[in-house]
Amino acid sequence: MKLEHLIAEIRKKQSFLCIGLDTDLEKIPSHLLQDEDPIFSFNKAIIDATHQLCVAYKPNIAFYEAYGILGWKALEKTIIYLNENHPEIFTIADAKRGDIGNTSTRYAKAFFEDLNFDSITVAPYMGKDSVEPFLAFTDKHTILLALTSNQGAFDFQTQMVNGQELYKNVLETSKTYTNSKNLMYVVGATKAEYLRDIRKIIPESFLLVPGVGAQGGSLEDVCKYGMNSNIGLLINSSRGIIYASKEKDFAKAAASKAAELQNQMAMELKK
Amino acid sequence: MKLEHLIAEIRKKQSFLCIGLDTDLEKIPSHLLQDEDPIFSFNKAIIDATHQLCVAYKPNIAFYEAYGILGWKALEKTIIYLNENHPEIFTIADAKRGDIGNTSTRYAKAFFEDLNFDSITVAPYMGKDSVEPFLAFTDKHTILLALTSNQGAFDFQTQMVNGQELYKNVLETSKTYTNSKNLMYVVGATKAEYLRDIRKIIPESFLLVPGVGAQGGSLEDVCKYGMNSNIGLLINSSRGIIYASKEKDFAKAAASKAAELQNQMAMELKK
Repeated sequence: MKLEHLIAEIRKKQSFLCIGLDTDLEKIPSHLLQDEDPIFSFNKAIIDATHQLCVAYKPNIAFYEAYGILGWKALEKTIIYLNENHPEIFTIADAKRGDIGNTSTRYAKAFFEDLNFDSITVAPYMGKDSVEPFLAFTDKHTILLALTSNQGAFDFQTQMVNGQELYKNVLETSKTYTNSKNLMYVVGATKAEYLRDIRKIIPESFLLVPGVGAQGGSLEDVCKYGMNSNIGLLINSSRGIIYASKEKDFAKAAASKAAELQNQMAMELKK
Repeated sequence: MKLEHLIAEIRKKQSFLCIGLDTDLEKIPSHLLQDEDPIFSFNKAIIDATHQLCVAYKPNIAFYEAYGILGWKALEKTIIYLNENHPEIFTIADAKRGDIGNTSTRYAKAFFEDLNFDSITVAPYMGKDSVEPFLAFTDKHTILLALTSNQGAFDFQTQMVNGQELYKNVLETSKTYTNSKNLMYVVGATKAEYLRDIRKIIPESFLLVPGVGAQGGSLEDVCKYGMNSNIGLLINSSRGIIYASKEKDFAKAAASKAAELQNQMAMELKK
């Protein structure tokens, strides 16, 4: 998907919400467990109920890999369902992959060609030749981990390297990679004030922001410091939406939670 | 597998060779493509021909993920074959995973419980709470990326953080993680002289060393700087062994290449 289509969709829906499909058989409503493919049944119901309120879905691949072949089948069905029924939706494989060149190419093919995701999250530790194989797919987007929303982010990401924090070094360095205009970045909302500095380095790029709500970040602060003229934000919520209810009304409850966020986003877009 | 069993196996076989099962349908002998599961057929033939010459196998998960469900089936069959027929062999899921806590736990379950690998490679960028969920499996081993063998390693890993290179910071910091005694580390052989400094930080840990041979590292130098009283080294070779021939003699050719390395290793163990 081209960036201009994503931006147009955000303006149309007045939403920059991404819904994380972290589907866990221990957390979905028990009546779904009778279905042939409970993971897909759950995802389909969530998508049907929320697709007009969000612009992106982000399955976290760990949740599918944990179920082996059954999980992969459910992931395949989910992405096919999205691409066939909602081609206007931006899809993110939250895989946090990264390896030496020819191996990263394998991951890129798996997620960009076979599964036909629009984007994938990638870890930066192995550097240029681990990231560029993803960027070589110029009609796709590579979302690099910069500043994550977990406590462990302070172990290395905020350590000083050449006078600036490592995550800023990652932002600066990644700008020199071939096809870097197709980069987006993961920036946790728990440190919204950091977004001001981040925007000095990457004013144009889209940011995928986890950690609003459950992990404590404020939507207003993220928009204040992170929004640019093309919006430039995708705010992710996973558990807060998809597990809003464990009963038969789960899809309706998810839509209600998504609508709350979408309403707040519409207000931010009007500012 | 307990470390003492791995060490005993190294002494018995006079080998600390790990064979990388980076199985690529475009590189395996064409006659195998007629088989029901060519990836597994290839892996089984390689394992049958080489298991007495090595102590570990390391499937790189990207190569399996690239084939979707077929790839996962082949991976499952390979690890089951190894665990049933060669329980003395140390198995490594080269997955380079890492995510926030509950998600890392998912990956850990996928590779440690469902697939029953002895170990997994993990990326350090997200810090403590992304690594400790793997370490919580105390009968397994977590192999943390420290200094990789690719050019991109110089982007971030060798940058100075608080007066020392980031990869040394990763080594130091990881020692404070809960159950850190179950850590091993990936250290590329292309920088064998770095091993002297690395051994000052982690004298006891096992190192998984890629990049001997094809990528230019010298086995002799790696042993000189990296070996400890428990050997402490697993040297990986992938393409140099498994693609030694594209003809019907491929398994024999792989065994011959593996035997060359095993002979050199036996000499190093006698020093």
